[in-house]
Amino acid sequence: MEPESMTKSGVLLLISAPSGGGKTTVCASMLTQNPALKRVITCTTRSPRPGEVNGQDYHFLSMPEFERRMAAGEFLEQALVYGNRYGTLRSSVVDVLRSGSDVLLNIDVQGAASIRKVAEADPEIRSALATVFLTPRTLVELESRLRGRGSESEEVVARRLSAAPAEVAEAVHFDYLVVSETREWDLRRVQSIYEAEKARRHRVALDGWRVL
Amino acid sequence: MEPESMTKSGVLLLISAPSGGGKTTVCASMLTQNPALKRVITCTTRSPRPGEVNGQDYHFLSMPEFERRMAAGEFLEQALVYGNRYGTLRSSVVDVLRSGSDVLLNIDVQGAASIRKVAEADPEIRSALATVFLTPRTLVELESRLRGRGSESEEVVARRLSAAPAEVAEAVHFDYLVVSETREWDLRRVQSIYEAEKARRHRVALDGWRVL
Repeated sequence: MEPESMTKSGVLLLISAPSGGGKTTVCASMLTQNPALKRVITCTTRSPRPGEVNGQDYHFLSMPEFERRMAAGEFLEQALVYGNRYGTLRSSVVDVLRSGSDVLLNIDVQGAASIRKVAEADPEIRSALATVFLTPRTLVELESRLRGRGSESEEVVARRLSAAPAEVAEAVHFDYLVVSETREWDLRRVQSIYEAEKARRHRVALDGWRVL
Repeated sequence: MEPESMTKSGVLLLISAPSGGGKTTVCASMLTQNPALKRVITCTTRSPRPGEVNGQDYHFLSMPEFERRMAAGEFLEQALVYGNRYGTLRSSVVDVLRSGSDVLLNIDVQGAASIRKVAEADPEIRSALATVFLTPRTLVELESRLRGRGSESEEVVARRLSAAPAEVAEAVHFDYLVVSETREWDLRRVQSIYEAEKARRHRVALDGWRVL
């Protein structure tokens, strides 16, 4: 659908949401319906679970290796979760972009803040980055979604609800704000954002006219 | 489809193209498929043709009245064509935006340049404005489109082709660049741009969280 020659610069589509905001479903659908949109393999220091393949599910790194690369500024974002580190290497993202594909990053608000900060000083990331915040309309709606799943313990629901207002306050730092309606509507809105970003002037080559 | 409460600020979707670039077709389809997107009535000093209704086809103004309003800075853009003036009043656009609808402006590159200039000093226009340049991939393609219509004289085709490179050079000043593929593809791309613009952070209210 997308003629190769049209694109000068790929899109790094970052999608963030409060926990339970529905971003995992939207991201999975985006990847399914856009062959040019790829996820990147992230890094972790946790041990592989049975069946997990290095370089496919994660890049499994030792803690010293992870921390060495952190110190070298190789991560766009990273986080320590229950004693394990998780992170996205800049090189993983840039390799996909340079191959002519686009990248979808499904990430929490802290990770998004980290990537925005990197982008300030990194023209290649900045040129590619488009940030989307997806959120239910109200805390009440988030609560009904979390409970509707029926899969979360009361403790997890309570923790997510108490974190949500601060997460939603981060919305002001994103390029786009999608206030959730239905799953189909949300997906369509995110798809439109992706397609519009592909048409942003700096991403489109117009070689046929030799004027740009 | 668009919940009223979501939108803080309307979209002024400006579409420009070299003559014969196919923008009239795209604009007509956009208006048909988006009830919230309206055209505005423009002004002219030419005489009404049989059947034309003042305030519906055009606002028909006398030359002194038009020029008085020009001098008062009331036009977003205006042009003199074969001795008649044509122009878009700022108030026509702003009235539609304030009523909660969006505005589609189908306009030439000179008009687009004028509106960008107004927007620099006019926050209400600037906040609403999103500019799209639609163009065939090459001059050869533009020529085959113009001739394919079979309705233009050789003189008109030649005039449009000679004007096109300078018009396309203006593409660098637009927010979005749509290099024409098929009618359906072009329309989908413009529709995506419109929907994405509606999701831009500054246009979306998030009252339910009382944080923005």
